[in-house]
Amino acid sequence: MNPNAVIGRPFPQLNAESKVKGNAAFCDDLWFPKMLYCRILRSPHAHARILEIDTSEAESLPGVKAVITAGDTPRIPFVHVGGPFQDKLPLQDSKVRYVGDEVAAVAALREDIAETALRLIRVKYEVLPAVFDPEEALGEDAPQVHDGKNNALIHIKRDFGNAERALEESDLVLEDVFETQAVSHCNLEPRCSVAMMDEQGVLKIWTSTQSPHYVRKEVSHVLGLPLTNVRVMEIHVGGGFGSRSKVCEDEAITAMLALKTGRPVKIAYSREEEFTATRIRMPFKIWIKQGVTNDGTLTARKMKVIADKGAYAHYGPAVLGYAAGVSCALYRVPNVKYDGYLVYTNKHFAGPFRGFGAPQVTFAIESQIDRLAENLGMDGMALRLKNANQPNETTTNGWRITSCGFSDCIRKAAETSGWAEKKKARAKGNSDQDTLRGIGMACGIHLCGAKIFADGDYSGAIVKVFEDGQVTLYKGNTDMGTWSNTTAAQIVAEEIGIDLDRVRVISMDTETTPTDSGSFASRVLFIHGNAAKKAAAKAKASLLKSAAAVLGETEKDLFIESGAIAVTGNPEKRITIGEAVKQSAEKVCDFISCEYHYDPPSEPLNFQTGYSNISAAYTFTTQVAEVEVDRSTGLVSVQQFVVAQDVGKAINPLAVEGQIEGAVAQGIGYALSEGYHYQDGFVLNANFTDYSMPGIQTLPKDGKLKVILVETDDPEGPFGAKGAGELTLNPTAAAVANAVYDATGIRCNTLPITPEQLAARLEEKAHK
Amino acid sequence: MNPNAVIGRPFPQLNAESKVKGNAAFCDDLWFPKMLYCRILRSPHAHARILEIDTSEAESLPGVKAVITAGDTPRIPFVHVGGPFQDKLPLQDSKVRYVGDEVAAVAALREDIAETALRLIRVKYEVLPAVFDPEEALGEDAPQVHDGKNNALIHIKRDFGNAERALEESDLVLEDVFETQAVSHCNLEPRCSVAMMDEQGVLKIWTSTQSPHYVRKEVSHVLGLPLTNVRVMEIHVGGGFGSRSKVCEDEAITAMLALKTGRPVKIAYSREEEFTATRIRMPFKIWIKQGVTNDGTLTARKMKVIADKGAYAHYGPAVLGYAAGVSCALYRVPNVKYDGYLVYTNKHFAGPFRGFGAPQVTFAIESQIDRLAENLGMDGMALRLKNANQPNETTTNGWRITSCGFSDCIRKAAETSGWAEKKKARAKGNSDQDTLRGIGMACGIHLCGAKIFADGDYSGAIVKVFEDGQVTLYKGNTDMGTWSNTTAAQIVAEEIGIDLDRVRVISMDTETTPTDSGSFASRVLFIHGNAAKKAAAKAKASLLKSAAAVLGETEKDLFIESGAIAVTGNPEKRITIGEAVKQSAEKVCDFISCEYHYDPPSEPLNFQTGYSNISAAYTFTTQVAEVEVDRSTGLVSVQQFVVAQDVGKAINPLAVEGQIEGAVAQGIGYALSEGYHYQDGFVLNANFTDYSMPGIQTLPKDGKLKVILVETDDPEGPFGAKGAGELTLNPTAAAVANAVYDATGIRCNTLPITPEQLAARLEEKAHK
Repeated sequence: MNPNAVIGRPFPQLNAESKVKGNAAFCDDLWFPKMLYCRILRSPHAHARILEIDTSEAESLPGVKAVITAGDTPRIPFVHVGGPFQDKLPLQDSKVRYVGDEVAAVAALREDIAETALRLIRVKYEVLPAVFDPEEALGEDAPQVHDGKNNALIHIKRDFGNAERALEESDLVLEDVFETQAVSHCNLEPRCSVAMMDEQGVLKIWTSTQSPHYVRKEVSHVLGLPLTNVRVMEIHVGGGFGSRSKVCEDEAITAMLALKTGRPVKIAYSREEEFTATRIRMPFKIWIKQGVTNDGTLTARKMKVIADKGAYAHYGPAVLGYAAGVSCALYRVPNVKYDGYLVYTNKHFAGPFRGFGAPQVTFAIESQIDRLAENLGMDGMALRLKNANQPNETTTNGWRITSCGFSDCIRKAAETSGWAEKKKARAKGNSDQDTLRGIGMACGIHLCGAKIFADGDYSGAIVKVFEDGQVTLYKGNTDMGTWSNTTAAQIVAEEIGIDLDRVRVISMDTETTPTDSGSFASRVLFIHGNAAKKAAAKAKASLLKSAAAVLGETEKDLFIESGAIAVTGNPEKRITIGEAVKQSAEKVCDFISCEYHYDPPSEPLNFQTGYSNISAAYTFTTQVAEVEVDRSTGLVSVQQFVVAQDVGKAINPLAVEGQIEGAVAQGIGYALSEGYHYQDGFVLNANFTDYSMPGIQTLPKDGKLKVILVETDDPEGPFGAKGAGELTLNPTAAAVANAVYDATGIRCNTLPITPEQLAARLEEKAHK
Repeated sequence: MNPNAVIGRPFPQLNAESKVKGNAAFCDDLWFPKMLYCRILRSPHAHARILEIDTSEAESLPGVKAVITAGDTPRIPFVHVGGPFQDKLPLQDSKVRYVGDEVAAVAALREDIAETALRLIRVKYEVLPAVFDPEEALGEDAPQVHDGKNNALIHIKRDFGNAERALEESDLVLEDVFETQAVSHCNLEPRCSVAMMDEQGVLKIWTSTQSPHYVRKEVSHVLGLPLTNVRVMEIHVGGGFGSRSKVCEDEAITAMLALKTGRPVKIAYSREEEFTATRIRMPFKIWIKQGVTNDGTLTARKMKVIADKGAYAHYGPAVLGYAAGVSCALYRVPNVKYDGYLVYTNKHFAGPFRGFGAPQVTFAIESQIDRLAENLGMDGMALRLKNANQPNETTTNGWRITSCGFSDCIRKAAETSGWAEKKKARAKGNSDQDTLRGIGMACGIHLCGAKIFADGDYSGAIVKVFEDGQVTLYKGNTDMGTWSNTTAAQIVAEEIGIDLDRVRVISMDTETTPTDSGSFASRVLFIHGNAAKKAAAKAKASLLKSAAAVLGETEKDLFIESGAIAVTGNPEKRITIGEAVKQSAEKVCDFISCEYHYDPPSEPLNFQTGYSNISAAYTFTTQVAEVEVDRSTGLVSVQQFVVAQDVGKAINPLAVEGQIEGAVAQGIGYALSEGYHYQDGFVLNANFTDYSMPGIQTLPKDGKLKVILVETDDPEGPFGAKGAGELTLNPTAAAVANAVYDATGIRCNTLPITPEQLAARLEEKAHK
């Protein structure tokens, strides 16, 4: 490695220190003069018609400054992605469709006054029968969540090759049903936003969002304002994982109250609201059939998915569309038939969540791959290697794979985990022990940004170089746990040839930073990274041009080193970067400014056929879980977890490893403990005590969470890099479930694999 | 007037509503997590050597997070303007030179803890003899405020023509001595700043400053940081009047504490500190001799000024230099000799204050002009008209006057005030009444920006036009009572041809707005206005180019109207501005961006000779005061005040009138009541109760404060406009003093004309 290289080095996250020390400001740290506090009145019914709302008593409570209902708003629904499903108003006007649905909102001098006012709002409801199960919801007499829509939101069909015939012709076909649960993103920062009308008629919004430019677009839309009359401001964001990749109701509601009152309005959700009234991961029921030849070649995959959308469409069609894509693309599988049904129910509604539908289908595919190997008498690793996607192949559904380290990932994960020896040892059986041990493998595929979304996948970057030699990158997306400010700064530093501490990043302010779709879809490093790299290249060219004029040399004879531009072969002859800016004919005031707008060479998703190359690069992972199962309690503990992942090029190994480790934790939670408990549409465990998010004690200890970065130098990625935010989570639950099977001989097809579930199955098995 | 014109119309100030309603956030409204509160330990001595500082006890007080003295800082003095006088450290290291000088600073969890900690800092002083009078300070044995400098900071000499000979040859010569007092800017918002190191090593500063770019420059300098490692942020500013046109100590001290503690640090000065430890208007003692011929032609002016600089140089040389300029330029006077001495004393130190030295010398010149007229038996108005500067003349000291409505101002002020009739009535005498009435006139000259300052007089503007047709102007100076955001937005709207509500302004943020010297020197409308106009013109050209391509027309056949670009003669054929942006080849992401950097066609001040055209335009005012004097108490009340002022073109009449009215109020305070009272270097009246700033009850009532805008269409000003912030104040005290003389026959040459002073003089006169 070049000793001066900025990329590839494990720099700490730019804002780590301020976050660790508690200095970083989040939305709830904001306060403005005359700020009001908002609380939202939510539906207590899973399904009811709103007959009448009387806010008069609430309005007359001292300290209450405004009470709004749908009648006070333009009644424009949010524009959600993936089709014509604009079914969600910021405040409901005719019906409520889940327990938690927004009915009214209060702005008051204090939060407790607002809370009291909520109790004074009289809503007359006509309670309607509700439906909670998506299969029931598809029945003829089922209650209609949205009148006249039969609850069938969308049917996504994929049909490549001839799956039926291929299955008939296969040597082995297996058929299974899997179910995945609703889970929460468990953001450590509950939703919070502050809206304030400034003196110029611009509605400023500070919000914990992943996509400031989407929030601007949606809030201006629902308020009927010109786009740039809304300005989303820079603020730290305490987690997202997809839940904040589009607008949330609170952003529109505080905006409406700010307009009505002329005062700043803040809302900070309670933990209970964060659990019950924000987005969740969509539960899937998956029927899957796969066929193989005797040598282990995958011949066909047939799937049916019923996805429980909850009360509103939101990103649902896109999530289900991407799940279909992964189902067609994971492993070389020439014949795929896929039917996905998105179904309304009277429950809180799903949105994007790290993996975007992939973890659900990957759990099914990879659990069954394990069964196929076992039934063929083949090693699971060998079967996966045989069918692994290869570089420069196009998948059945048109994904044009370029860089691809899939086979390497399988080999390295196996090697590091001791796969071969452990499988051999396990073959001798461990059925007499109290603690059962098992090992399981699973793989995943993912994208780097995607054109699944209505308005594409793009990013602008502006790079300014100032007269003091400092550089600022302006980026429109959010910096979260994905370290995007840090890695984007590394890319700029590397491209120009300066130290990292010379680069600063301004992100997220829709007025001063260029448009960008947002921080989701594993896109920022790849899409914005390219924009930043190319803007930096323009800045470098401008600096060299200026320096060449000053030094009387030609650009090609110059190089940048240690903050200066020097002559090759005569490096004493040099000027500082700051001086080159000062002397530049392209200078604006005291800086030069270069911008680039990157639009990747990918194709929009064809929603009808599903055939298109939606991303400019794809990533691959292989994971090996080793578990211990307590035979008496059914408690599974993950002893070792190995991830080998194709990251293209690790711009910052620390950043990639951190995201991979975090995703393993989230995946283990998905596999073993997390999930909502409901009764009549009410969430019973809307708090961290009852919800069972894994803590540090649940994860492999003593360095047993092992990450191997497989670098493949992607041709389109900036410096060869690819995205890494989501992929890891996709197969984690399958790896754990496969290890549980290896330990116990029990296939758990329903997530999470709780001690209750497993203990009962172990008991049942012991008595057979 | 074009009915669609945006300029020339009395739009309300863009942020008036939020300020009036109390929604606008000022520095003291800011709070950040872990923020510390700073208090400053100030010298209790007017002059003392610091022998030892023991901070240990203060440091160990619970809640104290840092205590700093000069030893904790890089000991780099501020770079002040006007010569090599870098004599002020943020914290003093060896000596203190006035009561209030900064010695140490504490950052603590609460302000009261910081205050307690101050009392625990032990400073051993060697008290030194102090000097408070500038004439004494020039004596041979006077205490040395700065060791080895003899207190004589600078001697400014001007010598044009031959004043001595011209005086000898004059028909009438008068000689007088005048004294002006130290006054406070009386900002309603006391100084406040917050400094915070962000996660990227950028020191963010929110501060009540007039010049964010100067603050950035000075703070980075005293901390030894690269320029752009300091970022001054946008915030409302509650008054300035010159006092905040450069860095203040608190900005550097909070920055140092933020660096040391790693936490945000706020300081909010008490009202007492605002009065005693921030800048003041420099007191002048002025010896003046002017000569005239019998027909009233001014022949010569000879002046000596001793200016009491207080303990540190600050802008003093520039203020005295500009006072010299005005002394050479007010009226056509061919022979001028001027000697100005800037003298250190052990008092709080002066800085810029609205008028920048002009009010002091104008008081002397205009009081004596009145005497000259009387002694010639000539009407004061006639004498002034005879000598008034004329368009396209160059003054004795090289000021090239272009637009000039001076004579018109004299005529209109006289006409509106009823000058002729009232002077005639007064000639009959009113000496028998209890209430004496009088009328007085005075005139002033001023500049529009100036190259008095070391780094010139420039402004950048960036105009962005977005795809929704909205426009943002980025400007680097501060919006205060000068309405600069409003008038700059009007200029942009007018230039492009859109409504004012389509234009927004982002100002003051040194990272996102282009460099600009700051909001002072009556420069913003003129200097920044030109930058904004030219950037807007580029944006308009870009829009027309795009529209021409889309419509298949040529640019010259297009015009902009109602947010659209239409074809002349076929206005149905049109596209919206937003669409022109979308289709533009020059688009960056979702906007087009155009910038302009304006540097006026003026010359740097020649400090040696004083001969240079320091401004690209000059402004003129004539004022007529009508007073009543209570014969028994000496109380003067201003019954009517007329201002006729050459403003070039009033971009916003409301904005200009507001500034003129404010300046009259401040000028009346200067004339009649304001001033510091000292004892041994201590200020005795550091509060609004004892200081006597005029309130609304002191000003002319019932519409008797009359403003006449004389429009002269300046050739270089944006749309013909000139600056208006300071000029009005220059002659106000003289107009009042001349009216007092007219009423009483008593010449008050010492400001303020308090009831005590005047009652004693009336008493004395009655007994003569």
